[in-house]
Amino acid sequence: MTYCVALKVEAGMVFASDSRTNAGFDQISTFRKMVVYERPGDRFMVLLSSGNLSISQSVRELLQGEALSDSGPDPTTIWNATTMFEVARLLGQTVRQVYDVDGPALRSAGIDYGCTLILGGQIRGEPMRLFLVYSTGNFIEATPETCYFQIGEAKYGKPVLDRMLVPTMPLAEATKCALVSIDSTLKSNLSVGLPIDLVVYEAGALQSDQMICIDEVNPYFAMIRESWGQRLRDAFDGIDNPVWGPSGAGHPLSVRSDRYDVLRKIQHPGDKLV
Amino acid sequence: MTYCVALKVEAGMVFASDSRTNAGFDQISTFRKMVVYERPGDRFMVLLSSGNLSISQSVRELLQGEALSDSGPDPTTIWNATTMFEVARLLGQTVRQVYDVDGPALRSAGIDYGCTLILGGQIRGEPMRLFLVYSTGNFIEATPETCYFQIGEAKYGKPVLDRMLVPTMPLAEATKCALVSIDSTLKSNLSVGLPIDLVVYEAGALQSDQMICIDEVNPYFAMIRESWGQRLRDAFDGIDNPVWGPSGAGHPLSVRSDRYDVLRKIQHPGDKLV
Repeated sequence: MTYCVALKVEAGMVFASDSRTNAGFDQISTFRKMVVYERPGDRFMVLLSSGNLSISQSVRELLQGEALSDSGPDPTTIWNATTMFEVARLLGQTVRQVYDVDGPALRSAGIDYGCTLILGGQIRGEPMRLFLVYSTGNFIEATPETCYFQIGEAKYGKPVLDRMLVPTMPLAEATKCALVSIDSTLKSNLSVGLPIDLVVYEAGALQSDQMICIDEVNPYFAMIRESWGQRLRDAFDGIDNPVWGPSGAGHPLSVRSDRYDVLRKIQHPGDKLV
Repeated sequence: MTYCVALKVEAGMVFASDSRTNAGFDQISTFRKMVVYERPGDRFMVLLSSGNLSISQSVRELLQGEALSDSGPDPTTIWNATTMFEVARLLGQTVRQVYDVDGPALRSAGIDYGCTLILGGQIRGEPMRLFLVYSTGNFIEATPETCYFQIGEAKYGKPVLDRMLVPTMPLAEATKCALVSIDSTLKSNLSVGLPIDLVVYEAGALQSDQMICIDEVNPYFAMIRESWGQRLRDAFDGIDNPVWGPSGAGHPLSVRSDRYDVLRKIQHPGDKLV
């Protein structure tokens, strides 16, 4: 499995991906799921991929050499596209091309060949943009209301994003948010594993040196893993246990609602369900 | 969708279920997913169901009248079974029976007709037991190592269980744990909704009056919804943001690991992926 997450806040973007792939539990390997395309001062783009590894690797390899099919005699590539939208279209087109070649054989063998990608970055003259590209080559773009995308094993790491992430968040805090989201996923799903690739991009920079591969010994991530678990424990302990029966102070559990009576117990073989 | 969770700790058991069903987003209804079978002093059992509503309702209705098929002239029913294992077998058999009748038509119409159930409780002379019964009628039992089961939209509410739940937890704390798990699920998935049915059973009691239907105005659940979100926020804020670059104190993010170099940037059209 895979977990990749990308956040876009006003101050910049954060990209993080795990590196575990599995084809059955006895065939687990480490593969990067992140590629960074950069021409300093001109463009900075990050591609994250999930799904069938052979498909996504082909897409990544081809993308570099591809040209947008309707771009005429002076072909549009990821290196001369003037908008991130063009790059997203190119990526979608590349995905379709790989499926045209490999899809029929994989389908006939009953192999799951889905592949979902996240593309984010900035090209000079444009604001930052973040896209989610589907297996079918179509794509959607993140907005201030939904300023993140996840691919792969997304559910465990989603609550923290839903609760914490806001577009006005400083970039360092957004980085923390992405790493806590990854930590929650690692904790609940064995098929998502270290090392984590992390790239942080500051809005307008058109380059980044904030790129790191986080493994077991990374001091910051080790602190998050230890500290987040303990703080959740403290948060949990800080909430009062429920008290049954009406109570003057506090928050009793058993103030009856009208619907209470509906949950009738069945006490005899002849009783009917309500 | 549905979310049901059942916990078994040494002090007792907690059962909770939401009540939203949907057949498409414009056909959302409220249906109970919990049934309580009780004969005070003799047996107390709770059944939670997820999946196709017509299948699970038929199973619940039939279960009351069914007898274990190999139980001879003096048939074993849920009311005279001497072990929870027998009740689980009966439930599995009932599930298979409903599938025999309804399965072919649903399958030929391409309708998803899965149905997964949780059965827990206690019969006099036995300890408490908790089972997960699959669509195929087979089942597994909870153990001290894995002392909970979830069905339906399980992932959002799983991290809190993985982190907090231990079999030695007091029953009131286990109740809080179940409700926090439900709150996390409500927060991230629209298709899981209030009211929540909650039953708490004390080990050995063979009956329970701790049954409640939790709606929007329940003071305890309202406090959890408010307080858990705020405490998560505080826990999140309490963790330092990452600092790039080596640092004397604190937990720097950018202490390079050996694998750092592998995440190479592609800076020219001719560059190769590593």
